[in-house]
Amino acid sequence: MNVDIKSKFKGVISVIGASEIDKKIEELTFEIGRLLAKNRFIIACGGLSGVMEAVCRGAKEENGLTIGIIPHTKKIMANKYVDIVIPCPFSQARNIVVVLSGDACLAISGKAGTLSEICFAWIYQKPIIALSSVKGWSSKIANQKLDNRREDIIYGVETPQDAIDKLNELFE
Amino acid sequence: MNVDIKSKFKGVISVIGASEIDKKIEELTFEIGRLLAKNRFIIACGGLSGVMEAVCRGAKEENGLTIGIIPHTKKIMANKYVDIVIPCPFSQARNIVVVLSGDACLAISGKAGTLSEICFAWIYQKPIIALSSVKGWSSKIANQKLDNRREDIIYGVETPQDAIDKLNELFE
Amino acid sequence: MNVDIKSKFKGVISVIGASEIDKKIEELTFEIGRLLAKNRFIIACGGLSGVMEAVCRGAKEENGLTIGIIPHTKKIMANKYVDIVIPCPFSQARNIVVVLSGDACLAISGKAGTLSEICFAWIYQKPIIALSSVKGWSSKIANQKLDNRREDIIYGVETPQDAIDKLNELFE
Amino acid sequence: MNVDIKSKFKGVISVIGASEIDKKIEELTFEIGRLLAKNRFIIACGGLSGVMEAVCRGAKEENGLTIGIIPHTKKIMANKYVDIVIPCPFSQARNIVVVLSGDACLAISGKAGTLSEICFAWIYQKPIIALSSVKGWSSKIANQKLDNRREDIIYGVETPQDAIDKLNELFE
Repeated sequence: MNVDIKSKFKGVISVIGASEIDKKIEELTFEIGRLLAKNRFIIACGGLSGVMEAVCRGAKEENGLTIGIIPHTKKIMANKYVDIVIPCPFSQARNIVVVLSGDACLAISGKAGTLSEICFAWIYQKPIIALSSVKGWSSKIANQKLDNRREDIIYGVETPQDAIDKLNELFE
Repeated sequence: MNVDIKSKFKGVISVIGASEIDKKIEELTFEIGRLLAKNRFIIACGGLSGVMEAVCRGAKEENGLTIGIIPHTKKIMANKYVDIVIPCPFSQARNIVVVLSGDACLAISGKAGTLSEICFAWIYQKPIIALSSVKGWSSKIANQKLDNRREDIIYGVETPQDAIDKLNELFE
Repeated sequence: MNVDIKSKFKGVISVIGASEIDKKIEELTFEIGRLLAKNRFIIACGGLSGVMEAVCRGAKEENGLTIGIIPHTKKIMANKYVDIVIPCPFSQARNIVVVLSGDACLAISGKAGTLSEICFAWIYQKPIIALSSVKGWSSKIANQKLDNRREDIIYGVETPQDAIDKLNELFE
Repeated sequence: MNVDIKSKFKGVISVIGASEIDKKIEELTFEIGRLLAKNRFIIACGGLSGVMEAVCRGAKEENGLTIGIIPHTKKIMANKYVDIVIPCPFSQARNIVVVLSGDACLAISGKAGTLSEICFAWIYQKPIIALSSVKGWSSKIANQKLDNRREDIIYGVETPQDAIDKLNELFE
């Protein structure tokens, strides 16, 4: 056994999005998880259902590594595709830890909770990639700035492969 | 001395906005603080500078009551118009406590931090009023919904008096 | 109406202890609340039952001011003697906010949660007074130091009046 | 590459202790880290110096897996033996996340911060092992109960091997 995380992986990506999703978003998210793992990115997420479960399931398909930061005290509450469970029983404040655990943030659809995570990613200076081909906050906010504190924008991407290409560009 | 808070006041309003503001926003915010106190609302805010200081300064002009929830460990860090200091040294998570301490939320201008607070107010089912006559997130988000979990919208208001009228309507 | 908190009160005392207490501790705690209010101290506490309720009930008997920092999102969860409710839905982390909101800490009996609060009061350099005449951590830890970072000790006191005398000495 | 965390490891142990330690405690902690990794336990800790660094350094000697939950926003603040950094910028509240991330808790020496973590481990029903052969809270609290909510005690152990034996017994 040799667990040399730092040399095996290029970085950690915080994947954020809603806990209830339709079939289309589930398939896109699964594909994103698969591609992230294949491209040697660790996944950090909220560890529950919806986007969080689909991205972990995709990652495990490629033997990726998944971290789930859950808003509960008991580790058993995480979805079964999470390798490392971090219980953070602080209600919406757990979203801050999800964002900070990544080296970049990838938003897929999402409601108000996802928008709060995009705000944190912006405030804490994480590069942000937003899927613009689905409904919800990831498309509404794509290619914009949240305020004038940063030079860059929230990068809109159309497809899972575009998201990976952008991440590979950022972490080459 | 008789401190009968519950019968003296109609409710607590979380006032949110940027820590750096121009003269125009400062004057509007001071007026909002003054009117809130005069109309027997307690003010909860982040306790620091900008909108947070101007609203407390306005409230104290009318002998109002102000609560400042600061992201530091030491109470001395609050602005001098805060009566009750609640240190909440949890970085951006302190914003959650600001929002939850109010019975409604009033947004004045604001950057990404304010937008995250609007998200929390939305998630935690607080009525939200947003000043639409100033730049920043309070005008961008006015008269919209953040997602479909609520029937109501973020109420846009033009002037300090409009904000008070709306609050009096909500808390009559 | 004139709410000049700063000139009316000498300081804020964080009162900590168990949420389930026997009749003897309830009476002692009520008396401590009454004396704190009479001596112009604001009370900060966890806002729920047991010591938290008894101390607020005592304080309101003398028209005192009470702050309840509760580990829930909804303000309605506080006991009815709390004037100002601060929801801090962060599980045990709410204990940190309870301790930091006071200028000193007063421990009455208590289990592991109270001991964690005594630890925080020690770490954040708050003077600590512990009732030594009742079972639980307040007597076990009285007249000791938690470690060598401070010169002072946790001051053991025998009666409610002794607690007030010590606080008056600290905040004269 | 195959990162099958769940089948490779027996559990996660939260290792807690002071950030400043003497040579003797450093050596004991390094040995504990080495043995934990060798016995297929993942290490969760506070990710900074002292006990946190020594246990991670020991674990990496045996190609173990280490998680560091740091009270800062920037991942770079973790010690260099941490594989997975979880930023939790919530002051002492980060200690809660350290404890909850483990399936059991192992205390080595320690001051008031470590005692607060022992309290959390007790409250959240984690088995607790305390090294009784060194100064500080791990020996003071060994073989005791913090209150009557649990049937078990804080298990005192004399040596690193005793600690591992106890953990193997708990997680066989």
